[in-house]
Amino acid sequence: MSFRNLIDFSDIPAKEWEEMCTLAADMKIHPHRYVSACAGKVLATLFYEPSTRTQLSFQTAMFRLGGSVIGFSDPNSSSVSKGETLRDTIKIVSTYADVVAMRNPVEGAAFAASLYCRVPLINAGDGGHLHPTQTMTDMYTIREEKGGCDGLSIGMCGDLLNGRTVHSLSKALSPHFGNTYYLISTDKLKMPGYATEMLSANGGKIIECRSLDECIALLDVLYMTRIQRERFSSESDYRSQAGIFVLDNEKLKKAKDDLIILHPLPKVDEISYEVDDDPRSKYFEQAENALYLRMALILTLTEKFPDRLPVKGEKYIFSGERYCKNPVCISNHEKYLPKIVKQKNERKYCGYCDRDV
Amino acid sequence: MSFRNLIDFSDIPAKEWEEMCTLAADMKIHPHRYVSACAGKVLATLFYEPSTRTQLSFQTAMFRLGGSVIGFSDPNSSSVSKGETLRDTIKIVSTYADVVAMRNPVEGAAFAASLYCRVPLINAGDGGHLHPTQTMTDMYTIREEKGGCDGLSIGMCGDLLNGRTVHSLSKALSPHFGNTYYLISTDKLKMPGYATEMLSANGGKIIECRSLDECIALLDVLYMTRIQRERFSSESDYRSQAGIFVLDNEKLKKAKDDLIILHPLPKVDEISYEVDDDPRSKYFEQAENALYLRMALILTLTEKFPDRLPVKGEKYIFSGERYCKNPVCISNHEKYLPKIVKQKNERKYCGYCDRDV
Amino acid sequence: MSFRNLIDFSDIPAKEWEEMCTLAADMKIHPHRYVSACAGKVLATLFYEPSTRTQLSFQTAMFRLGGSVIGFSDPNSSSVSKGETLRDTIKIVSTYADVVAMRNPVEGAAFAASLYCRVPLINAGDGGHLHPTQTMTDMYTIREEKGGCDGLSIGMCGDLLNGRTVHSLSKALSPHFGNTYYLISTDKLKMPGYATEMLSANGGKIIECRSLDECIALLDVLYMTRIQRERFSSESDYRSQAGIFVLDNEKLKKAKDDLIILHPLPKVDEISYEVDDDPRSKYFEQAENALYLRMALILTLTEKFPDRLPVKGEKYIFSGERYCKNPVCISNHEKYLPKIVKQKNERKYCGYCDRDV
Repeated sequence: MSFRNLIDFSDIPAKEWEEMCTLAADMKIHPHRYVSACAGKVLATLFYEPSTRTQLSFQTAMFRLGGSVIGFSDPNSSSVSKGETLRDTIKIVSTYADVVAMRNPVEGAAFAASLYCRVPLINAGDGGHLHPTQTMTDMYTIREEKGGCDGLSIGMCGDLLNGRTVHSLSKALSPHFGNTYYLISTDKLKMPGYATEMLSANGGKIIECRSLDECIALLDVLYMTRIQRERFSSESDYRSQAGIFVLDNEKLKKAKDDLIILHPLPKVDEISYEVDDDPRSKYFEQAENALYLRMALILTLTEKFPDRLPVKGEKYIFSGERYCKNPVCISNHEKYLPKIVKQKNERKYCGYCDRDV
Repeated sequence: MSFRNLIDFSDIPAKEWEEMCTLAADMKIHPHRYVSACAGKVLATLFYEPSTRTQLSFQTAMFRLGGSVIGFSDPNSSSVSKGETLRDTIKIVSTYADVVAMRNPVEGAAFAASLYCRVPLINAGDGGHLHPTQTMTDMYTIREEKGGCDGLSIGMCGDLLNGRTVHSLSKALSPHFGNTYYLISTDKLKMPGYATEMLSANGGKIIECRSLDECIALLDVLYMTRIQRERFSSESDYRSQAGIFVLDNEKLKKAKDDLIILHPLPKVDEISYEVDDDPRSKYFEQAENALYLRMALILTLTEKFPDRLPVKGEKYIFSGERYCKNPVCISNHEKYLPKIVKQKNERKYCGYCDRDV
Repeated sequence: MSFRNLIDFSDIPAKEWEEMCTLAADMKIHPHRYVSACAGKVLATLFYEPSTRTQLSFQTAMFRLGGSVIGFSDPNSSSVSKGETLRDTIKIVSTYADVVAMRNPVEGAAFAASLYCRVPLINAGDGGHLHPTQTMTDMYTIREEKGGCDGLSIGMCGDLLNGRTVHSLSKALSPHFGNTYYLISTDKLKMPGYATEMLSANGGKIIECRSLDECIALLDVLYMTRIQRERFSSESDYRSQAGIFVLDNEKLKKAKDDLIILHPLPKVDEISYEVDDDPRSKYFEQAENALYLRMALILTLTEKFPDRLPVKGEKYIFSGERYCKNPVCISNHEKYLPKIVKQKNERKYCGYCDRDV
């Protein structure tokens, strides 16, 4: 395994991703083979904002591997409320645990924490930024159901502007070939430019739609997300438009027999109850896959990196300079963090939150 | 085992109840025999309202069987707060867990959840409706201490109108013979008609009392519950009456030597501290029995139903009709639920909350 | 082991403390020897006020011994909120668990609970009173780094008036010989008389300082604690003085090469970030030691006292008399508690909170 921390899905080289998928598939079929694979190991789930679903999934993954779980789910009950730095918290917790899964509302928090973490760290969501284990699940489910992620017609529906999961998925799909992307959203909530660029990077075709009806007949994959009521300019605007993005049996009549419907869950009103029983809906299978992928990830990381790093001696030094303009970037919240600027072609961006500087 | 889900104590056929009591008794004497009986299995404790005692007891039960526990104890930190349906939550959680224990403030919630649960579900209390594992404990303790539940003089004291535990106990005692029931309460807080009907169904004699002193000398079993201060019409009313229903050493002087005193706990003022050390008080033993019965229940259900049901294909279909007048019935909270009306003799009642329709 | 409950560090006889240190040191080197030492055992962590760090540490300790953990971290979700007595809670929980670790904001609560606890009880902090497992860590770290706790120059810096940890440490250091204590604080926050008396009991020399610079060059051990902003009489007072008590690389230039810097953590501003990487800072090692000492304590207590005490028959009887003037003493909160007055020479003090009566 070439990566110690999983901050972004793109941290996983293609070959290792193949191996992890194979491992997850084996865990799904032969769970009993792994019941003591992590015996004696401890996972810390540090949830600075509550996310019951994700936390239960990580906990179950560790329990099914025979390990134990410590952690918190409430920012107010943590030492953070006493003013402790993320750095100190992560140093101590990674002295107790063998692997850490962290969710934090601040962008770049997982990467920042990984600089000081003595054991492998998994990003379980850092604000609106990244959520790589969700992306693993999405990619794995497409792959399992469709035999691969190339040459497909893929719809993404809902709030494409603010949706973290669709941005991560776009990045993950970027290296794949021959796909056509149907981006189904309102004008105000359409996919941001950097994400469409990623989708079209390897010749992906982009088609923007204003309703599900326009394109549903053409799709191999439909990735649904929620449009929050408060994103619309007015209540009447919401009422008039919301139904266009709700998936129901009526709309599904036009869809292919081998369409697969995905959703990161939890869902609210965007998919009618009746669709749950349609054989094409795969979101519950997707949630189940998440479990096996997290098991595979935890097992792989703890096996490859069994030794705790020393608590002292980070190479990154605090510069004192404020350089990132993103107010929800961790570099503006934890003041000891070193300045990290990355460059790709012309573009310079913050090493924590990936925003241009 | 003929039941997959335990919603109500009456779900357990008499013969299987005997077997479960035998198993619990063996667990009490030989706990070491069971230390890995549920190894590799996961219990989910979904507590939509906090109940530390019950949750700790379920957790301990699973740990003593060698299993693991996931769950939440705070409705606000669950995905519910994001608007997810109970149906979706239970589908996902039962994909992670091998058995579910759920507490919910809404009546009928456990039964509603069981319609979609892929693994056995245990009702750990649904509002003022049912709490079958408490009733198991009550029945087991009477049986163990008295050799059976027939031919006894049984007092029930406190708020008999609103007390969930005494109603459940009345239903459980209903098939037994030759009992005399002393119902000790205020006029305003007396046992509702449907409960006294159950007690008298098999020839049980009902005697209503207005104080403990009236009947304590006659009792074989005294089941104490709390009268909440706010149930009285005024503070002066409370002060003048409350003492009548408080058990202390003075009142106990008149009681039989082999009386047993039960209480579902937690208790507040209704039993004097001094009574705790009286050999006749059995409420701590009762709480201990709860542990072994929950162990027996978890082990039995996970052994008999090791396979997860498919996530799709419930047979119950949403009708759209609102038919139950109970505002705290789950059928009025989760709108996709099918209409379920049951009938017994002349009576038609809601399949979720058991109220007449 | 001569003590069943650990309420105060002084409960541990010197010889048994040696043994526990040896055991903890072995656990640090050979953790794999202990992975199933507590298999099948249950630790209850009853945290009536949140303290994530301490709770995670206790949980990890039990998991690394192969045991399980139940408990709560939020007073509002416990049965306490229903008005249950500490006595009832502890009786029930100690029926479920094999060892209890309790934190409570009320002084003397751990001792009070131990009167009714059926299994060994560990005080994980009772208000501003005692926190013996922290003191174990402090003493162990000094011992391990310095070969013993005698003949040293020991600085204690920060809020010495209100700091629970420095008071406990003073008591623990009291029997040791040949030490010089540098008490570094403001005039208003200096060490209380009873604590300096303990330090000087065996000939310890006391030197009061008003800044770190005065004495840092002389120290073998520097125990840092926080001065809370609100302890200063004004914001300007805070700004002018706070820096005097902040440890940074500049001040450390004058210190000995073999100084060790300790801190109970979490820290906020009182130690500059840069100091973390100085080889003399030992607070992270100290936090790690806490884990092994808690493992050693849990294992020792559960091995020596495997049998649950009977739930009935406390020898202490409620007297009804209010005798302690400390409003945050548990004897003034739980009214059934017996009066316990202890005497040492001329001094009479409360058996719960140790305040003079």
